[in-house]
Amino acid sequence: MARYTSMELLRYLLFDVHQVNTLFKSEKFSHLDEEQAWMIVESAKLLADLEMFPYFKVFDDTPATYDGKGGVKTHPQLKKIIQSAAAQSWIGGAAKFEHGGLQLPEMIFNTGQHIFQAANNSVQGYIGLSTGAADLITSFGNKAQIETYVPPIYEGRWQGTMALTEPQAGSSLSDITTSAMVTDRGYYLVKGQKIFISGGQHEAVENFVHLTLARIEGAPAGVKGISLFIIPKFTPEPDGTLRYNDVYCAGDFQKMGQRGYSTTHLSFGDNDNCRAYLVGEPHKGLAYMFQMMNGARISVGQCAASVAMAAYQASLQYCMERPQGRMPSEKDPTKPPTLIINHADVQRMLLTQKSIAEASLSLAMECNKLYDQVHSTDGEEKENYLLLLEILTPIVKTYASEQGSRSAALAIQTLGGYGFTTDFPVQQLYRDLKIMSLYEGTTGIQSLDLLGRKVTIHNGKAVKLLLVLISSTIKDAEETGRLAPYAYKLTTELHRMGKVLEHLSEYALKSDVERYLADATVFMEMAGHIVIAWQWLKMAVVAAKKIKNSEFDSKSLPFLEGKIHTMEFFFKYELPHAEACAKTLEDPLTLTNIKDFELFF
Amino acid sequence: MARYTSMELLRYLLFDVHQVNTLFKSEKFSHLDEEQAWMIVESAKLLADLEMFPYFKVFDDTPATYDGKGGVKTHPQLKKIIQSAAAQSWIGGAAKFEHGGLQLPEMIFNTGQHIFQAANNSVQGYIGLSTGAADLITSFGNKAQIETYVPPIYEGRWQGTMALTEPQAGSSLSDITTSAMVTDRGYYLVKGQKIFISGGQHEAVENFVHLTLARIEGAPAGVKGISLFIIPKFTPEPDGTLRYNDVYCAGDFQKMGQRGYSTTHLSFGDNDNCRAYLVGEPHKGLAYMFQMMNGARISVGQCAASVAMAAYQASLQYCMERPQGRMPSEKDPTKPPTLIINHADVQRMLLTQKSIAEASLSLAMECNKLYDQVHSTDGEEKENYLLLLEILTPIVKTYASEQGSRSAALAIQTLGGYGFTTDFPVQQLYRDLKIMSLYEGTTGIQSLDLLGRKVTIHNGKAVKLLLVLISSTIKDAEETGRLAPYAYKLTTELHRMGKVLEHLSEYALKSDVERYLADATVFMEMAGHIVIAWQWLKMAVVAAKKIKNSEFDSKSLPFLEGKIHTMEFFFKYELPHAEACAKTLEDPLTLTNIKDFELFF
Repeated sequence: MARYTSMELLRYLLFDVHQVNTLFKSEKFSHLDEEQAWMIVESAKLLADLEMFPYFKVFDDTPATYDGKGGVKTHPQLKKIIQSAAAQSWIGGAAKFEHGGLQLPEMIFNTGQHIFQAANNSVQGYIGLSTGAADLITSFGNKAQIETYVPPIYEGRWQGTMALTEPQAGSSLSDITTSAMVTDRGYYLVKGQKIFISGGQHEAVENFVHLTLARIEGAPAGVKGISLFIIPKFTPEPDGTLRYNDVYCAGDFQKMGQRGYSTTHLSFGDNDNCRAYLVGEPHKGLAYMFQMMNGARISVGQCAASVAMAAYQASLQYCMERPQGRMPSEKDPTKPPTLIINHADVQRMLLTQKSIAEASLSLAMECNKLYDQVHSTDGEEKENYLLLLEILTPIVKTYASEQGSRSAALAIQTLGGYGFTTDFPVQQLYRDLKIMSLYEGTTGIQSLDLLGRKVTIHNGKAVKLLLVLISSTIKDAEETGRLAPYAYKLTTELHRMGKVLEHLSEYALKSDVERYLADATVFMEMAGHIVIAWQWLKMAVVAAKKIKNSEFDSKSLPFLEGKIHTMEFFFKYELPHAEACAKTLEDPLTLTNIKDFELFF
Repeated sequence: MARYTSMELLRYLLFDVHQVNTLFKSEKFSHLDEEQAWMIVESAKLLADLEMFPYFKVFDDTPATYDGKGGVKTHPQLKKIIQSAAAQSWIGGAAKFEHGGLQLPEMIFNTGQHIFQAANNSVQGYIGLSTGAADLITSFGNKAQIETYVPPIYEGRWQGTMALTEPQAGSSLSDITTSAMVTDRGYYLVKGQKIFISGGQHEAVENFVHLTLARIEGAPAGVKGISLFIIPKFTPEPDGTLRYNDVYCAGDFQKMGQRGYSTTHLSFGDNDNCRAYLVGEPHKGLAYMFQMMNGARISVGQCAASVAMAAYQASLQYCMERPQGRMPSEKDPTKPPTLIINHADVQRMLLTQKSIAEASLSLAMECNKLYDQVHSTDGEEKENYLLLLEILTPIVKTYASEQGSRSAALAIQTLGGYGFTTDFPVQQLYRDLKIMSLYEGTTGIQSLDLLGRKVTIHNGKAVKLLLVLISSTIKDAEETGRLAPYAYKLTTELHRMGKVLEHLSEYALKSDVERYLADATVFMEMAGHIVIAWQWLKMAVVAAKKIKNSEFDSKSLPFLEGKIHTMEFFFKYELPHAEACAKTLEDPLTLTNIKDFELFF
């Protein structure tokens, strides 16, 4: 069985680094203890080993494909996976008891999802979308809506989706035109086209619940006129039967990766009979949708981390088994070849992957913990956790997807020519990963969100809170002695980021918002490096303390030393690029706000 | 017709920046003038427009596939393309008149190949391999070998290949085991397995000429015991008939990209009857092969540049046609959306692509010119050109393939979700491009070659010659006035590189060759950025001079200003990462020479 994640790492992140146990003290999670939590995670591994991972390549070889008559053909195993995942509460497990869930912390629930993502990223999307859709209905729907739609989703019989994008609007949600006509029968009639609908009308479930953004007739222009609707493919009648609701799948998109995951074009109301059920109040749809969207962004970041992890594990396994070449100092060609992991450049490629994949996963777990903290606290504490979550969301999404692609490219590279062939999984992981920088808002959109909204929110309060959090890790690192030089380096980077923000704020103060935002993606790259350096320092601090206090069994010393070693690697090889980004950001030249573009391209 | 390259750029690079005209003064190329040269390039464009580009996606959709009985099925258009290319001298055009060629400079010949690579990179490989194989036979074969094998290759009837890699040896050529047994019949009998043989036994030609590395029985171990053989699939008999030569295609490799390009597993001598004809002297095969290998490395670098160029052109076209979103300062959602090229981040992505693709192509042309200079001069001049070519070869190969992948990723990114779908070419280009960092020596191998061999050769003479060449561009830039600040920046980078080499040489002086080479790939990254900065400065100097002297028609002013603008972009956004690499290289920590690797992974 090939490896696709590391259970030792998951245990370390969950219990040692991010201390899920502290959550168990809150009332919401008081029914759990460490042993139970780990058993739940291990059950996810078993499920993934048996039902998901063996189908990783098969799903790529037999992509989800439009059947020409309104449906999408998927591999038969998909149905089995969705049903097993549902039966083992991997769709509704994080929901409250009152909604049929196990009231699991996201930290635990999403560690399970990580395992699924690493095992077979094409299938976890179906599950994750259902979870997100049900959560959204639970948060903003009325009692009848919750009772009607949530249970069948959690049971894996119905699939949830999010239907936002339209052909003419793309990322620009203010331009969506799908229209909702008021009726006096308790529903709206919707008409419009939605594209890129992931998990759309495939054959592995009985029904679909499309959470759809549309514009009620007469609504204001722009994002302030968008409402959120539940649009089932089949409307459940009072007698329990299902009535076709004029939601037609008009086609699909074939993709270079995630080929087992259906991507559909949905047409609502071709026969003027598509009933839509308003969620919450009119015109507030985008704000509601952002609950699901934010969750999806973290999930995409985590998925990118998971795919990068799977690629790293496949790469590592190959490098520990493949003999080839000799060390530069070995001139005797009759000596047997060495394992390629002994070559410095191979170690560099492995450590780069490790430093990206593990820390991205750690950052995703940081976000999951913040989510749990938001949902188990009140007042200012809750608000602060929420601000932290909001500023980290675009970063985890972007760092993991952008650097994850680089990481997966290195996985291919370690296999040499074999890595490019379909005989090995790394090329599939590389293809799969590329979509992560596009899902749920491209890197460009995330960067505008970070610099334009999250950095400026409440006069920079989110940044300040993040600095407090990072500073506490720095303090811990200083106290270890051994890690003090890295504490100093990270402090330097934080100061540098502060200076960059000062520099950029001059444009904002001059109301030159276009120039302020022009290099948002470069700022994102810098922030990503710094936040990941923080995660590494955090992982290393825990390791250094355990080593100092002899709190480990002899078997896990290499694991702990490996964390410190990879932290050092990240600081030597990756972090210097944060300074390069700062140089770009502080350069006063304006080169990308060209009005007469024909002149320059 | 979608765009895949820029003829305006090619003209600029050929005639203005790299001044192909200077070659026409040498005896070898005195039969050419500017007008003729350009007509030849234009004929390549016409051929590519009509016969190659329209099949770009088709070749991906119907990959070259093993037929189960010794052959590889290819799309019928391939045969037509090879025949047309041969008829128009795009296989043998650079050969001397005496060998049936047009004695074209590589600069011209490879500009044609660039057009083919950008139009349909899967097919140019077949042509390029044939050219390289025929060149190798011409250089080192005897008269009979040249007369037998070269003409049918140039006529497109026979396909040349290079057969080096073996399953157990991979990149480590010193470990190849294919054996050649001496006979008294003028040939050797060869037995062995070769994998990853590009352009292997497909159905578009009559015969194959496999240039194969093997070990004559009793030869010394290692690379000093490798000989080069011509092994045809069918041996031409004196009467002109073809006799099957026991070269069996045992299978193929399916790949994530370049799917139209066959990649085969060849089995020589399964029936102990595979005749091989020694080229040159025994045991000198690797040195001979390196002629073809070096050419192939430049060609791969150029191909990466070409694919990145095609992705950039597709991306640019989309961005100039697609309306979406509004500028950050435009708050009115009823205003029509703007073209996405007006968004700063889209301009940043386009300029990043442009800065990578155009300069990589310029560097490839620099190498092609050096090749021409080597082959049209004598004595010390020739030696110096050769040293320059040798040091730039691994850099163009690596920069273009590594940064080209990043560039193609940005092409996908500019298209948003569409970029990931098979409806658009950018995802195919992204997949195709990934192999370029593996072909003909991975990035790791190229980096060892650069730092371990090319930098140290003749006490650093190649580096010194390169510095002289770059300094002359810097001097030109200073003289323009306008570009002086960039001349200064590049000078700073050269000093930095000098310091890095000084630092690294301390390890070499201590005979710690493993540590000296440990970060060779990081050094390569730094050198790549600096060399590309040089190419940009060179392009900008020419533009600045033309503008200053009013040597342009009004139509081309934007093109020229665009060159200076992109140079500025590269210096602002890309070059700072050279300094980051220097920081890594000067860090004394040793993290990738771990002997007990189990401890850390």
